[in-house]
Amino acid sequence: MTGTVLALAGGVGGAKLALGLAHVLDEGELVIVGNTGDDFEHLGLAISPDLDTLLYTLAGLADESRGWGRQDETWKFMAALGRLGGPTWFRLGDSDLALHLERTRRLAAGETLSAVTDGLRRKLGVVSRILPMTDDRVRTRLRCDCGWLDFQDYFVRLRCEPAVQALDYVGAEAARPVPEVIDMLGGEDLRAVVICPSNPFLSIEPILAIPGMRTAIANCRAPVVAVSPVIAGQAVKGPTTKMMRELGLAASASAVACRYADLLDAFVVDEADAAMAAPEGVRLVTARTLMTCLADRRRLAQIVLAAADAEADR
Amino acid sequence: MTGTVLALAGGVGGAKLALGLAHVLDEGELVIVGNTGDDFEHLGLAISPDLDTLLYTLAGLADESRGWGRQDETWKFMAALGRLGGPTWFRLGDSDLALHLERTRRLAAGETLSAVTDGLRRKLGVVSRILPMTDDRVRTRLRCDCGWLDFQDYFVRLRCEPAVQALDYVGAEAARPVPEVIDMLGGEDLRAVVICPSNPFLSIEPILAIPGMRTAIANCRAPVVAVSPVIAGQAVKGPTTKMMRELGLAASASAVACRYADLLDAFVVDEADAAMAAPEGVRLVTARTLMTCLADRRRLAQIVLAAADAEADR
Repeated sequence: MTGTVLALAGGVGGAKLALGLAHVLDEGELVIVGNTGDDFEHLGLAISPDLDTLLYTLAGLADESRGWGRQDETWKFMAALGRLGGPTWFRLGDSDLALHLERTRRLAAGETLSAVTDGLRRKLGVVSRILPMTDDRVRTRLRCDCGWLDFQDYFVRLRCEPAVQALDYVGAEAARPVPEVIDMLGGEDLRAVVICPSNPFLSIEPILAIPGMRTAIANCRAPVVAVSPVIAGQAVKGPTTKMMRELGLAASASAVACRYADLLDAFVVDEADAAMAAPEGVRLVTARTLMTCLADRRRLAQIVLAAADAEADR
Repeated sequence: MTGTVLALAGGVGGAKLALGLAHVLDEGELVIVGNTGDDFEHLGLAISPDLDTLLYTLAGLADESRGWGRQDETWKFMAALGRLGGPTWFRLGDSDLALHLERTRRLAAGETLSAVTDGLRRKLGVVSRILPMTDDRVRTRLRCDCGWLDFQDYFVRLRCEPAVQALDYVGAEAARPVPEVIDMLGGEDLRAVVICPSNPFLSIEPILAIPGMRTAIANCRAPVVAVSPVIAGQAVKGPTTKMMRELGLAASASAVACRYADLLDAFVVDEADAAMAAPEGVRLVTARTLMTCLADRRRLAQIVLAAADAEADR
């Protein structure tokens, strides 16, 4: 089958599957919609952590062992900033800084985030399109014992330690989706929508909170397939299951499926979760979902596409 | 003699003498007023080249062979920025970037440039005070054949190649001097005012163009001593003599002395210029003014202070 595959992705896990999809699809077939609820302003820079992870991962520049930023990175800037008494809690590598300054410069010159992101991915030689969920400002906040925290304060500064009581995607109600994404979802050429194995609360639901997105996905003609970020009750990375427990949910793949049950045609879970009960109307597909190498990413991408194509044939 | 020495300085030459003065004076006796007409905004950063040269030189961090920026610098940021298609004509090292981002951050938070500069010099362990000529925005422009050029376009991008017909210090008329500087100039504790061997048009005259500065220097009780940046008709560095010729002036130490004749008690020139005619009322002092090592800087600083003290005794 051919046609456009639209992938919704957050950070590291999402980017891994997006890379697998980019490898098994033809040029131009993959469009990735990235979460921007993590975006923030720091040192006067417009930083988009999830878009950056997508850009670096698809350009082959990501530092996979660290899980963020660029490989072969150096830290002279941070050392000098520390000596000057500047804030060093959010680490910015010397090469990575270029992405933030260039994005900030182009945004200040009046370009949209989607235009800037598209320009950057071209310069980095990424053939798949990467689009932000919106060009408008949306900021994820988390209510904890200590009050409402901005995302990066929670995630980086406090290392996800506070218990989360609620989330808010500030600005989402007034934000507009990127028109091309809505057009693709309504178009004839759409092969599949893939919800990557990203944190539901921090990565996927901010995207779905943009007015029109959830409806456009629910109404699209193509199958919608999600991949669980939870394997046997554990998140591969990050605070997903800790947060699920804190929010009173089961820390399980099944609970993730319930978050998107209204959208899904198929849900891909790890073999360890083969016994889980799927929400009504959602086909369960089992696979080895842990992606430790490029071959894993390609293989899982092929399973996801096969699951989508099987639903389309139904 | 003791008391405050107020030095007016631009870039490299001025910073060399300022370093010599810092070495021969006691802690707290030296206050340096830096030119900010070269300041500009680039990549969203507030860059103050002359203040940076002063900070790095006095902190022992300057790259003396290159003549700008920091020693042991790396260029990963510039390489990454070039790959992203960003502007690379103004080179910013990885460590140097920290100074610009931290200054920009603090200015955006509402601090004055003098407060920020004072904070930075303390963090860098510089004991001498470094103050901008003003906290207001002043921008040197140059009229050339091609029209009015911003300073950095002329200086860096066009490598001082266009012939200069006129200069303008945009914003100077409305700018206010830093109050402490005016207080020092009017105070009893002032030992000397030193006009460092900097480009008159690009470094010293922007400082003197701030309303109140020239009068306060002319009226101060302490001797005013300048050091010629021109030796035997040649500038040690930069476009000083080229610009003098373009402006229809003689390319000589004598022509520099005439620029400040109303202010000067003594003018220190190189031994090569011992035969020059001093403006009326200005005592000529000859010395070896080329500063190639720290010993040169200390020696010249001592000669300048001795010249000032001799005038005070008169």
